[in-house]
Amino acid sequence: MKHVLVVGGGFGGLNAAKALAKANKFKITIVDRRNHHLFQPLLYQVAMAGLSPAEIATPIRTILSGNKNVKVFLGNVHSVDLSKKTVTTDFATLFYDYLILACGSKHSYFGHDEWEENAPGLKTLEQATEIRRRVLLAYELAERETSAEKQKLLQTFVVVGGGPTGVELAGALGEISRFTLAKDFTAIDSKSTRIILIEAGPRLLPSFAEDLSARAAKDLEKRGVTVWTNRRVTNITADGVYVGEELIPTKTALWAAGVLPSSVNKTLKVPLDKQGRVIVESDLSIKNHPEVFVLGDQAHFEDKGEVLPGLAPVAIQQGRHMVKILKADIDNKPRPSFHYVDKGQMAAIGRKSAVGQMNKAKFVGIVAWFMWLAVHIYYLIGFKNRLFVFLSWAWSYITFGRGARLIVSKEWRTHVLSKNSK
Amino acid sequence: MKHVLVVGGGFGGLNAAKALAKANKFKITIVDRRNHHLFQPLLYQVAMAGLSPAEIATPIRTILSGNKNVKVFLGNVHSVDLSKKTVTTDFATLFYDYLILACGSKHSYFGHDEWEENAPGLKTLEQATEIRRRVLLAYELAERETSAEKQKLLQTFVVVGGGPTGVELAGALGEISRFTLAKDFTAIDSKSTRIILIEAGPRLLPSFAEDLSARAAKDLEKRGVTVWTNRRVTNITADGVYVGEELIPTKTALWAAGVLPSSVNKTLKVPLDKQGRVIVESDLSIKNHPEVFVLGDQAHFEDKGEVLPGLAPVAIQQGRHMVKILKADIDNKPRPSFHYVDKGQMAAIGRKSAVGQMNKAKFVGIVAWFMWLAVHIYYLIGFKNRLFVFLSWAWSYITFGRGARLIVSKEWRTHVLSKNSK
Repeated sequence: MKHVLVVGGGFGGLNAAKALAKANKFKITIVDRRNHHLFQPLLYQVAMAGLSPAEIATPIRTILSGNKNVKVFLGNVHSVDLSKKTVTTDFATLFYDYLILACGSKHSYFGHDEWEENAPGLKTLEQATEIRRRVLLAYELAERETSAEKQKLLQTFVVVGGGPTGVELAGALGEISRFTLAKDFTAIDSKSTRIILIEAGPRLLPSFAEDLSARAAKDLEKRGVTVWTNRRVTNITADGVYVGEELIPTKTALWAAGVLPSSVNKTLKVPLDKQGRVIVESDLSIKNHPEVFVLGDQAHFEDKGEVLPGLAPVAIQQGRHMVKILKADIDNKPRPSFHYVDKGQMAAIGRKSAVGQMNKAKFVGIVAWFMWLAVHIYYLIGFKNRLFVFLSWAWSYITFGRGARLIVSKEWRTHVLSKNSK
Repeated sequence: MKHVLVVGGGFGGLNAAKALAKANKFKITIVDRRNHHLFQPLLYQVAMAGLSPAEIATPIRTILSGNKNVKVFLGNVHSVDLSKKTVTTDFATLFYDYLILACGSKHSYFGHDEWEENAPGLKTLEQATEIRRRVLLAYELAERETSAEKQKLLQTFVVVGGGPTGVELAGALGEISRFTLAKDFTAIDSKSTRIILIEAGPRLLPSFAEDLSARAAKDLEKRGVTVWTNRRVTNITADGVYVGEELIPTKTALWAAGVLPSSVNKTLKVPLDKQGRVIVESDLSIKNHPEVFVLGDQAHFEDKGEVLPGLAPVAIQQGRHMVKILKADIDNKPRPSFHYVDKGQMAAIGRKSAVGQMNKAKFVGIVAWFMWLAVHIYYLIGFKNRLFVFLSWAWSYITFGRGARLIVSKEWRTHVLSKNSK
């Protein structure tokens, strides 16, 4: 039996491993830096205190348990040696017959990594709970603040990036300030919260149809979000966000702009595109390395002259395609090329508001919102999570409340050390 | 209207604030270091991945919202000046007509605070998720370990302290290793996990009847827990736990032994007992300071010649008693002294197993377990939490699974810095 090494337990890697395990013709090893698969599309809900981390994450070994032919390891992958067919990790050097790289991407600060400290991105549970901590803490500090000016500063939020994540974060911030927190604070008026969404391009949601971008902007402004397009962020410091020469004073900036593929790519020594993604063949393999595949955000795949976007459905379909290719190899049949079936895209703006498009069809408002709800709950891995997320949402919908409004120190040690106070 | 300042949003302070708010005869300010009230009795469930933090914690301002006469502030209380009637915090100096101190307690390492790093206690959500991280990580590291000896080391857990918390932690560890993780790990046999519960006294659960202690020990051993009584821990290092001269090699020790009342007590300059608790009068006030009250773990209250234990019901009843006293003051009536109504005590050992006693009546096994379940779900604050905790448990009960098995870095920065790997 050939040994297939899968790196990454995201949508691409997990779906590849699941399909290969079912095929029962391979030995599979999957390695991830985390013990859990994360349902990225709902991560902003954790950042906005709507869901708990456990509701959108499941241990990878639980998802794959029961498959005798699968081994799961927690570990960091440092580099790949294509000639030796080995992968170096923090715990061992792993050999492979087939290698499937699905390491995903992290946020790109366009060469300004120093911005991250004052404008965290949203890719991991740690970042989500950190964003939650910063947002909720800003209101707590404003409540006990006596100077109106400082209160205004603390109640100003800036979201950088007008893609789906930025839109969803800004929309949720608008709703929290207007509904969830309104009745809980007495010294401040949470409704006066200022939320600015900055997009460098001409419109929000550039991958959507123009009228949907316009509708998204309109629905955001209804929720108190100020949308700035064609404005470029030039610097982010502890004082705030600089747009051109202008400083927007804020203590809470969130980054939802560029992404950068895994740094493993550089170790491959193969052609990468401008963004650093590995340029793959029609079967998702690396040129001259038919035994190595790259999926999802990490790969540059051209389909009908278009490069596929870094979306969950792309990674899922590419992951599932792996088993077809490896089975073809076993049967000495030609490998089927991958073709992306575009199921459309959606972005939630808030209660009863979303935008979505499938081929020519477009959806807005409450219809799109219910579609969004159904699709996301359906795709959540694990029946329990689906059930619980649905209940959490039903509950928030009725009560306007948000169940996970906890401020937990970002570092356990700091808490230990500060234990003596009080 | 008199201004009542409540320090601490635990069982004592929160119940005092709620009752006083309802009375509508006072201005109330409540200050806590956290934004949430924590349902301590179920904290071990978070540490053992059975519940999510949000399921046992609710924002204090949400619980008290709607009361126009209550202000909630997030803040650290540093000291109290009884003569000036002021409280110094990290954000302002607060004045009071009445002061209610309910700051609770933290873990005591009997003068060996250096043990904490290798044996965290269980008082906060941060500590609970940190314990969860350590326990789950130990299994992940064992799974990828090749030396049987190192695997044994990683699969050895030591719990120090045979009170309810220690018993509940050890019991849950036994069940996780035998049921939850068994099918998920292939390289190691999670059932071979070694769990040692160390109690310095002659028996577990010293506050319970002797036969219940014996039953608890028996039920724990059924779950693979080795119970050591009359054994004293002499040192805890990165190598393991020293009991007398003997070293138990372990990477995961948990501390559930002594507690130490809030360090605010020292700033009061009033008589404290040996453990550092404030000795209070029959109306819970400080001698010669009828305007200052101390509740819960922080107070030394003698009832019928017995000092009340640091239990939730004690703090709850003391908190609720406050309104009676302050109302009596308004009506110039004599203050009613506090009397504790002992509703009994319980400790859960695991599925279908608990011990409980009410006055003369004793309960064990599945009966006690269902009582424990009912009581704890009932007392959980917030209907949503009750519902969700009940569902989480029903689910775990059916599936033997644990929903919150996430390893999240204890520090966000470390994650940011390690992002480039993989």
